[in-house]
Amino acid sequence: MTDALSNLEVRYVRPVEGELTREHFECVEAEMPAPRPGQILVRNVYLSLDPYQRRQMMPGVQYAQPLALGGVMTGRTVGRVLVSHDARFKPGAWVRGAFGWQAYTAVNASDAEAIVLDGFSPTAYLGVLGSPGLTAWVGLRAIARALADETVVVSAVTGAVGSVVAALASASDCRVLGIAGGPDKCAHAVKLLHCDACIDHRSPDFAAQLEAASPRGIDVDFENVGGAVFDQVLTRLNDFARVALCGLVSQYNLVEPYGMRNTAALLNKNVLLQGFRVSHYSRYRAPAYAEIKSLLREGKLRQDESIVQGLRNAPDACIGMLGGRNLGKQLVQIGPEED
Amino acid sequence: MTDALSNLEVRYVRPVEGELTREHFECVEAEMPAPRPGQILVRNVYLSLDPYQRRQMMPGVQYAQPLALGGVMTGRTVGRVLVSHDARFKPGAWVRGAFGWQAYTAVNASDAEAIVLDGFSPTAYLGVLGSPGLTAWVGLRAIARALADETVVVSAVTGAVGSVVAALASASDCRVLGIAGGPDKCAHAVKLLHCDACIDHRSPDFAAQLEAASPRGIDVDFENVGGAVFDQVLTRLNDFARVALCGLVSQYNLVEPYGMRNTAALLNKNVLLQGFRVSHYSRYRAPAYAEIKSLLREGKLRQDESIVQGLRNAPDACIGMLGGRNLGKQLVQIGPEED
Repeated sequence: MTDALSNLEVRYVRPVEGELTREHFECVEAEMPAPRPGQILVRNVYLSLDPYQRRQMMPGVQYAQPLALGGVMTGRTVGRVLVSHDARFKPGAWVRGAFGWQAYTAVNASDAEAIVLDGFSPTAYLGVLGSPGLTAWVGLRAIARALADETVVVSAVTGAVGSVVAALASASDCRVLGIAGGPDKCAHAVKLLHCDACIDHRSPDFAAQLEAASPRGIDVDFENVGGAVFDQVLTRLNDFARVALCGLVSQYNLVEPYGMRNTAALLNKNVLLQGFRVSHYSRYRAPAYAEIKSLLREGKLRQDESIVQGLRNAPDACIGMLGGRNLGKQLVQIGPEED
Repeated sequence: MTDALSNLEVRYVRPVEGELTREHFECVEAEMPAPRPGQILVRNVYLSLDPYQRRQMMPGVQYAQPLALGGVMTGRTVGRVLVSHDARFKPGAWVRGAFGWQAYTAVNASDAEAIVLDGFSPTAYLGVLGSPGLTAWVGLRAIARALADETVVVSAVTGAVGSVVAALASASDCRVLGIAGGPDKCAHAVKLLHCDACIDHRSPDFAAQLEAASPRGIDVDFENVGGAVFDQVLTRLNDFARVALCGLVSQYNLVEPYGMRNTAALLNKNVLLQGFRVSHYSRYRAPAYAEIKSLLREGKLRQDESIVQGLRNAPDACIGMLGGRNLGKQLVQIGPEED
């Protein structure tokens, strides 16, 4: 816990090329922010860690909230209103926003979003009912447009996005093939995440397993990882397959990216590949969250979470997430839920 | 000229891995084909050479007319009806079809298409008014959907497809950036092919030239070539850019394809990349050929052709085309136009 009179910030202090390490971050005790008129002061409770946080450290990548060297790490949190200078926000209310890796944030009320829990946990609003859930829905429903009986591949299937993709695809009666790292994650994906099969990308016979698990080829690839595994998936694509390119987490820590070799498959199979960032698709929030809430209430979507305690552990948790050491949504608990 | 009593065939006799050479072909005097009832005998006049002919020699690539080892090379020709057992085809009529690399072909009448020249040369029906023209139209109009004031890049811009893309993009008031090999081709592209600029991909400062020529970034890439030049184009893409992936001619002769490195650009810029083969888009023939005929009649589209004489020279001409040694549509004249 941080002292109520001071803030705790995690700053991004060194440009990254290659592997992200703890040396790129610094934890700093800072002055408690003071909300100005029209602002609110938020006590951040949970911080979301997401692969895009590593991506935005790469040259040429611009987000709405650019990451500045020496500044507080950007990231979404859910928290509670501590002080309010805006009548729409009462002290104690749950709010969500891009409040950064810090214990307290003073923001304009227009940059905060009130959260009505509606029977779900506050953490859900950073996961299944937050950007990862919307990302899954947009990629599968609006971009790849997977249909019943089609074969859908989902890489990083035990992650925050992948697990929602698998549940949505299963709900549409697709054949769902997960890809994950290690036998434990694969067993979990088949047992609890609605995968018809899940293949360990570390297996020496990954290619043969993928072929055996996709007897009718692959119609949709929801790609979170990239690299050689992605190349192998491309060899199994059917004519007119769709690739929803959501992430390339295997590439972010490489100085020389692998990219892809099998571009010929995109050509020969009339493949549509769409890179997408969820920030451009907020128009789909209503249908996406409505469907995800239904699946949650019907027990057809699990809300796996890995929660690390304490903001000072956020750098290690972020590095771990990039290496696939989490299961489900990676969160950091900054403070207690209750005031 | 071949003897009227025998056929001349070019056969595909050796599987290719890597560089295509003359050793993969064999010219054979063969028996004159005899048309059966319902068939016609075609005297092939012009043979079309296209990069897909190299592509179909690669493993896993299937076309409607598969290429069989030891069989006649597949390819489209225009020719004249010599003998007809079908009332719809009169001797002397011009026909088009996948008649192969041979002097004479006996085919079912349903596999031949009657050509009404409509004031254009017979060769036009293998180029601007054939598959290359349709390919250009489909990629630019139906897939990339280039709009006025957008910047369109076209690789292999002096080729059969690229030159039509440039003319169509110019007609839509796009800014047209060609890419070609060598200063002569680049000068030709700017002077006669409606390019606002054309960059020599062999220039040591290609990247700097591309950047200078695309001050507002790139909205559409009509990709015929692939490889490192394609990677460089990807660095200049604007948000929501479209890549019409038509060909990867730089990759076909490689044992280990280069693929692409800059997959991150597809993700970061919300890029739509669509691989396509024109055979799936024949529904666009009417609007495509109508627009191309208009451009031809208004003098807004040049019909560059490189015509090699004699079927025995087809292998060398094909190898040369893959190396970019042609300007415009590469054809082989097999026999005289007039009977």
